[in-house]
Amino acid sequence: MAKETAGPLRLLRETHEERVLTALRTQGALTRAQLAEQTGLSRATLSSIVQHLLAKHAVSETASGGESGRCRGRPVTLLTLNAAGGLALGMDLGHRSIHVTVANVAHEVVASEGTACSGRTPWAKRLELALRLVDELAGRHEISLDALAGVGVGVVGPVSDTGGHRQPSRAARIALVRDGLTERFGVPVYVDNNTRLAALAEAIWGAGAGLQDVLYLRLSHGVGGGLVLGGHLFSGAGGAAGELGHISVDRNGPRCACGGRGCLERYVSLAAVLERCGVRGFDEVLRRLEADDSAVRQVIEDAGTRIGEVLAAACNTVNPESVVIGGELTAAGDHLLRPLRAAVRKYAHNQVRQRLHIAPAVLGHDDAARGGIALVLRRSALLAGYPATTPGLPDGDQLQDIG
Amino acid sequence: MAKETAGPLRLLRETHEERVLTALRTQGALTRAQLAEQTGLSRATLSSIVQHLLAKHAVSETASGGESGRCRGRPVTLLTLNAAGGLALGMDLGHRSIHVTVANVAHEVVASEGTACSGRTPWAKRLELALRLVDELAGRHEISLDALAGVGVGVVGPVSDTGGHRQPSRAARIALVRDGLTERFGVPVYVDNNTRLAALAEAIWGAGAGLQDVLYLRLSHGVGGGLVLGGHLFSGAGGAAGELGHISVDRNGPRCACGGRGCLERYVSLAAVLERCGVRGFDEVLRRLEADDSAVRQVIEDAGTRIGEVLAAACNTVNPESVVIGGELTAAGDHLLRPLRAAVRKYAHNQVRQRLHIAPAVLGHDDAARGGIALVLRRSALLAGYPATTPGLPDGDQLQDIG
Repeated sequence: MAKETAGPLRLLRETHEERVLTALRTQGALTRAQLAEQTGLSRATLSSIVQHLLAKHAVSETASGGESGRCRGRPVTLLTLNAAGGLALGMDLGHRSIHVTVANVAHEVVASEGTACSGRTPWAKRLELALRLVDELAGRHEISLDALAGVGVGVVGPVSDTGGHRQPSRAARIALVRDGLTERFGVPVYVDNNTRLAALAEAIWGAGAGLQDVLYLRLSHGVGGGLVLGGHLFSGAGGAAGELGHISVDRNGPRCACGGRGCLERYVSLAAVLERCGVRGFDEVLRRLEADDSAVRQVIEDAGTRIGEVLAAACNTVNPESVVIGGELTAAGDHLLRPLRAAVRKYAHNQVRQRLHIAPAVLGHDDAARGGIALVLRRSALLAGYPATTPGLPDGDQLQDIG
Repeated sequence: MAKETAGPLRLLRETHEERVLTALRTQGALTRAQLAEQTGLSRATLSSIVQHLLAKHAVSETASGGESGRCRGRPVTLLTLNAAGGLALGMDLGHRSIHVTVANVAHEVVASEGTACSGRTPWAKRLELALRLVDELAGRHEISLDALAGVGVGVVGPVSDTGGHRQPSRAARIALVRDGLTERFGVPVYVDNNTRLAALAEAIWGAGAGLQDVLYLRLSHGVGGGLVLGGHLFSGAGGAAGELGHISVDRNGPRCACGGRGCLERYVSLAAVLERCGVRGFDEVLRRLEADDSAVRQVIEDAGTRIGEVLAAACNTVNPESVVIGGELTAAGDHLLRPLRAAVRKYAHNQVRQRLHIAPAVLGHDDAARGGIALVLRRSALLAGYPATTPGLPDGDQLQDIG
């Protein structure tokens, strides 16, 4: 596939491609003439788009058995979506684990696999592990990687489209991943922060499915987040939109590695919570909550309140439809979510909290890899009609209104 | 003009219209055949768009004097942008003043006028005052309101596209304005919050011109704001995105009318600042700053710090390119902005503040009315190529990097 061209022309082309794909998705097999009628595109434009879609195996062509016979000497053929072609590969090169997921143009997951790694595993090694997983999956599921439309990969730390990473090690890490994958597969590679990719996946296929504006917060070893607006991942000028873990909750609090002071992460990261509870692992926290240990319950409630205060500020800024909360801490369930919701209610603007749903994340450990797939499907315009036509969306019942 | 139709078809049509208008703007007069070539649109689509643009006087048609003669029996005509047609009317029905501005399809302001009102002036009376201003302007500048493409009007308080205003008085006020203007002009009427419209105007023609993602804060009798993302006004689920004045700065602070607690507005509104300074008007505050009154200076510095803390949280959430600060308080200049910038530096994430510009607003009292014009030009697809081709943009020099 050709390298990306920027600007309105490319955007327009994507809109046209999406119209063609939507027509095929909703109408089934169509002739070129029918497609032209359905989409209102000129013959020249349509021809170029169909050629492009055929080249990337998103669409396939079959001879029509129908009565329409021949037109200007060329046999009439039918175009259909090619569910087996136009594969997207999603990867998550996380701190402690690596995930690889493959989906087709109908955005069905074809294969998925994960493996553990250590926080100290070098990035070249992580990439190698991920590529080995891809080969295993391809072999086991008879997947032809020739049909790959692109790779979407999540990495740790901020990623900015416009470059300018001040930390060379981070820039080098992103370059290593991007170059390694480009060399291996020869298709476009999209790199983003893995927490933001998890946000995108939750907004499309998870707890935010069917909603346009979703704020995602991940409560884990670190506290991060992502912002999905109008169904798209919103990165911001420096690739750091949704960095809710670095909103200050104490103006006189300790300095943070991010350059800020009194950051939420310092108070509610997994390590901070474990330290306050005086235990070694979060399983032990959950056992003590179960046993009604009031000291541990208080630590979790305090964390919920702090998080809710920060969410109120973030929600007053963007007024999302939904807040989705992921990460290990959510296993504390209502012990965490009840005070969290109460704090949002207490500090958010009426107009903001009246329409706000706060729900725990529903996707599993492959959330960021699935977000990588969403990037590919979106950017290569294979995800027609999304998210409205996404099959198997959870319904709205699991979203709880806090109003 | 027909009433709005929703969904992708309308969006696509706007994209096509924008392509046609961009071609005319950048290429000058064009024949239909040249337009088809420039835009890649089918003859049927182009014909329908041109007809629509002619009907709303955005484009005019003249006989070609050239050599190309006739084609299939129809004389060849040239299409050009009609700078005198396709007028947009912007209105600001503010708390203490009313502004009316008229612009043409080339987004040049044709006429502008304002009048004072009291905070207690009934809304029907405000509308009447605004309509009287329109008639005066039309008479004085010989403006034909038949060419009006739409009206964009700013009102006080939250406005939500999806309805659901819990306060009947607010819903009734919006309905009164919308219905009154629709009846008077028979064109689409777009209503939004006037602070958000000021945000849009600053992002297009003011201190944020040429930037995509702008966070706007207004420091006045109330403290409000607006969020412009990707060049578009972002409203959020409840029409309250950018409500920065209601982010809590003291979790134990007083209750606020918004339902929150310890809201920024309680600490830095004009009234709060005047009370803390022990003076009656902001002119007196400015005089005392000039005279180096240390107590007054401290009040303004404290306000700047509080505002900066809230901006840091908001910027960590959306990571904008620029923060634009408007309202009366900005007259305090660096007394306010220096501590404000310092607080943003202290509390925002490295990745967020490295690319952040913080600049005072540059538009005058008609900012919200001009935002209304932007709404009309945008929504009725008359603002081709915007904002890149906007004439007379201030350059980037007035933006100050705080990094």
